[in-house]
Amino acid sequence: MTTATQTAKTTHPAYQQLIERVREAQLIGSSAGILGWDQETFMPSGGVAYRGAQLAVLSRLSHESFTDPATGEALAGCEAENDLTSDPESVEAVNIREIRRRYDRATCLPAALVEEEAALSSSAMHCWADARKASDFKLFQESLEKVVDLMKRKAECYGWDAAGEPWDALAEDYEPGCTAAEVESVFTPLRKDLQTLLDDLMGSSKSPSNAFNEVKVPVDKQKQFVEKVAAQLGFDFDRGRLDVSTHPFCGGSHCNDVRMTTRFHENNVNDALGSTMHETGHGLYEQGLLEAHIGTPMGDSISLGIHESQSRMWENQVGRSEAFWKWCHPMMKEVLGDSVASLSFEDVYGGANIVKPDFIRVEADEATYNMHIMIRFEMERALMRGDLAVADIPEAWNAKYKDYLGIEVPDNARGCLQDVHWSMCSLGYFPTYTLGNLYCAQFFEKAMADMPDMYSQFEKGEFSGLLDWLRTNIHHHGRRYRAGELCEKVTGRPLESAPLVAHLNDKLRPLYGV
Amino acid sequence: MTTATQTAKTTHPAYQQLIERVREAQLIGSSAGILGWDQETFMPSGGVAYRGAQLAVLSRLSHESFTDPATGEALAGCEAENDLTSDPESVEAVNIREIRRRYDRATCLPAALVEEEAALSSSAMHCWADARKASDFKLFQESLEKVVDLMKRKAECYGWDAAGEPWDALAEDYEPGCTAAEVESVFTPLRKDLQTLLDDLMGSSKSPSNAFNEVKVPVDKQKQFVEKVAAQLGFDFDRGRLDVSTHPFCGGSHCNDVRMTTRFHENNVNDALGSTMHETGHGLYEQGLLEAHIGTPMGDSISLGIHESQSRMWENQVGRSEAFWKWCHPMMKEVLGDSVASLSFEDVYGGANIVKPDFIRVEADEATYNMHIMIRFEMERALMRGDLAVADIPEAWNAKYKDYLGIEVPDNARGCLQDVHWSMCSLGYFPTYTLGNLYCAQFFEKAMADMPDMYSQFEKGEFSGLLDWLRTNIHHHGRRYRAGELCEKVTGRPLESAPLVAHLNDKLRPLYGV
Repeated sequence: MTTATQTAKTTHPAYQQLIERVREAQLIGSSAGILGWDQETFMPSGGVAYRGAQLAVLSRLSHESFTDPATGEALAGCEAENDLTSDPESVEAVNIREIRRRYDRATCLPAALVEEEAALSSSAMHCWADARKASDFKLFQESLEKVVDLMKRKAECYGWDAAGEPWDALAEDYEPGCTAAEVESVFTPLRKDLQTLLDDLMGSSKSPSNAFNEVKVPVDKQKQFVEKVAAQLGFDFDRGRLDVSTHPFCGGSHCNDVRMTTRFHENNVNDALGSTMHETGHGLYEQGLLEAHIGTPMGDSISLGIHESQSRMWENQVGRSEAFWKWCHPMMKEVLGDSVASLSFEDVYGGANIVKPDFIRVEADEATYNMHIMIRFEMERALMRGDLAVADIPEAWNAKYKDYLGIEVPDNARGCLQDVHWSMCSLGYFPTYTLGNLYCAQFFEKAMADMPDMYSQFEKGEFSGLLDWLRTNIHHHGRRYRAGELCEKVTGRPLESAPLVAHLNDKLRPLYGV
Repeated sequence: MTTATQTAKTTHPAYQQLIERVREAQLIGSSAGILGWDQETFMPSGGVAYRGAQLAVLSRLSHESFTDPATGEALAGCEAENDLTSDPESVEAVNIREIRRRYDRATCLPAALVEEEAALSSSAMHCWADARKASDFKLFQESLEKVVDLMKRKAECYGWDAAGEPWDALAEDYEPGCTAAEVESVFTPLRKDLQTLLDDLMGSSKSPSNAFNEVKVPVDKQKQFVEKVAAQLGFDFDRGRLDVSTHPFCGGSHCNDVRMTTRFHENNVNDALGSTMHETGHGLYEQGLLEAHIGTPMGDSISLGIHESQSRMWENQVGRSEAFWKWCHPMMKEVLGDSVASLSFEDVYGGANIVKPDFIRVEADEATYNMHIMIRFEMERALMRGDLAVADIPEAWNAKYKDYLGIEVPDNARGCLQDVHWSMCSLGYFPTYTLGNLYCAQFFEKAMADMPDMYSQFEKGEFSGLLDWLRTNIHHHGRRYRAGELCEKVTGRPLESAPLVAHLNDKLRPLYGV
């Protein structure tokens, strides 16, 4: 593409108007991003009530700005210009396509349904919190029935492909183009292979030492340690921060102002490290989006699944690798001092890779985690199809935990009431976690094929090779491709379960001697 | 007022609509308040450019929301209801009156003039910064000429009383009801008395020890120390924060989320303490506004002068008093340890009260500070009257410094280019600093008359007596009264210079033995 063509396109009046409109909505939304971050990090407790009202107003204004008829007119004006859309991979065509998609979805829901969802999310979350506290599903059942009913109506508004099903319409909010059938086609072989692996691991008499998870390390030392790791991975502290919050997250405004958080417990430095590397993966993706495209789809991340592929890559493929620990173990000893002096290389590498089937998704290890997701996916799909009644969730949940992980769920608090998602009307969300693990493994396998010495780089604390590879192949494209398309472009194959299975087998079997 | 009446009033549809409209504008504006705070405290440098755009959009949306014709209609509806306005001190009448005032001022300026001011402020600030760096007034002269011209046109739009002058129209933005004639009537005797005091102090052979201003104290210790002081004065850390920024300020969202900052230099713990106590004064005023009135004039501060009266009260009347240091000196020694071990009571109390005429306003002591303000007031008044040409500012400035403070200004950087205000189109602002000192002294004199044992409370580290007095007499009223009215209500007299003069004489003469 010549510069002259690009200029003619970007200065097209309808296109300029379109970009101006989405940028305004984005300026409001990204302001809310900072307020949301502040709420979880530095806001004094007195600010809680009013902060909710501030965020609600900003959310409404951003929505109003984006769904203004002027956006629709500018879109139609752009779509009528062959010059702007002829090359579907051009910046302009991508932005027009993605803004159209967002605009249609934002304007197709009746205002009454949007309001109903906002009100129901709020009340259902309260019921869920009470129900979890009391471990009493009955306290949540009626709310969840309303949620499922509303989600069915919402799916009807969005619509879905003739070959698909209602769940697809909801998943589109989180993973554009994703269908239940496709998820099933990759989850089915994954389950089978994971089951074999887990059976072998759990049947072994050998297992890694847990010493790393039992040391006490002062929080200020942990902070120095994880900041050093984040910087070494490539996180740019002139374009972002790392703070503390109860639940770690990565937010902020745009690629030059990324706000990550982590958490510290004196007796769990491994958790602080894992959380930090996970959020650093999200943060590196955000910082890798191009400044020139801030506020437009070309400067936005693709999907939750692709975002999770980045966080999991640095947390798992890098942070739980033997090569990483060859660099990190001596560095950690230097920074943390006495408290970790007794830990051997085997203690830390093994301790970061312990596998143990358990009830709680957010505490699950790299291998069993995906089983938790499959269970949730199957259940929300059945709820949306009408094959499962809300009242039957506890029984179905417990049966699946017995089936998938061989464990007896002791109560609903540690069972079907453990996650907030459904109470927030977020059905179709869960699979993005495992899709992230799958994309991650397939990308990493390709990066390793392209750079066979990557592990020896890690051993020296060099991570820029991988980061540059991710920037070129993934980050810089913004939303140019759908997740599935990107996967084929980068790896030459559609998404498969084999790379993740190979990764887990190759790492975990030697540690467990099977 | 009975509860029934209040309910009938507050549920009046036009009144409800009015409050809803101002609350929305306030929700947007107070969101910008957090973004502004973030910009000065935690934002990474990469966020700068986009933050300006975020704040500009929020500012425009807040203005649009407030000046929407619906606000005008609701106002007219309220004003037609005798029930709502008959008692001018009622919550409803105060809110209606103050919203009317703000609405008329916000809607009377032509949009072109508002845009011109925004653009000029931005460009003039750049010229000013360059000019100050080069100490070359010529680099700023043309911009300042444009500012003065624009301010004259702005004053014409606002209008002023027949007996008044253009300067009054501008001051109304910062100090409602304030006129140049009134400022002059109180500044004139103040200058005379301050001159006598300064002549006597500077002619004395005795002066306090400067040892307190020469100790080195590690920043982390200073932080502990000033946080302890702020908490002791009554600042509620569950409803606010204290962080660090280059220029200390007090901002935030509302009475339950107040964000103060201070600054630390290893070799100036006295500055950190003074800055903290000053901002704590602002913070205590904000925290003293009533939660029930958040987002409305009844929950807003009166004026910059009254705000400054609160900051100066805690910084000067409390923080530089003998009684305060009787409590603070041993506490400081305990917290700061070795670095201040050699300082006697006389060193710290005297060192906090050194008087020395100098060039820089922001570094001036309690006594000479007001001279800096008088000089600026006289000059901006003359600029607005057309009695002083911008080109003649340096010469006039230097002559006044010789006249008021007996010092030769060495260059324009340390002379007429030292302050940012005029470049920001903020003419009419400077006097609010000295008005603050005057209101402060008059309020404090009355508080002392009401609680004769106040100093012995301070000696024991008890400050709740003064804080409660301020809450009852000042904070809880919001904008019920104008500054001058409040002064008469509280002290029984209009604003006078005598209390400030008496305060300075009583404290400084013994320290200088005159």
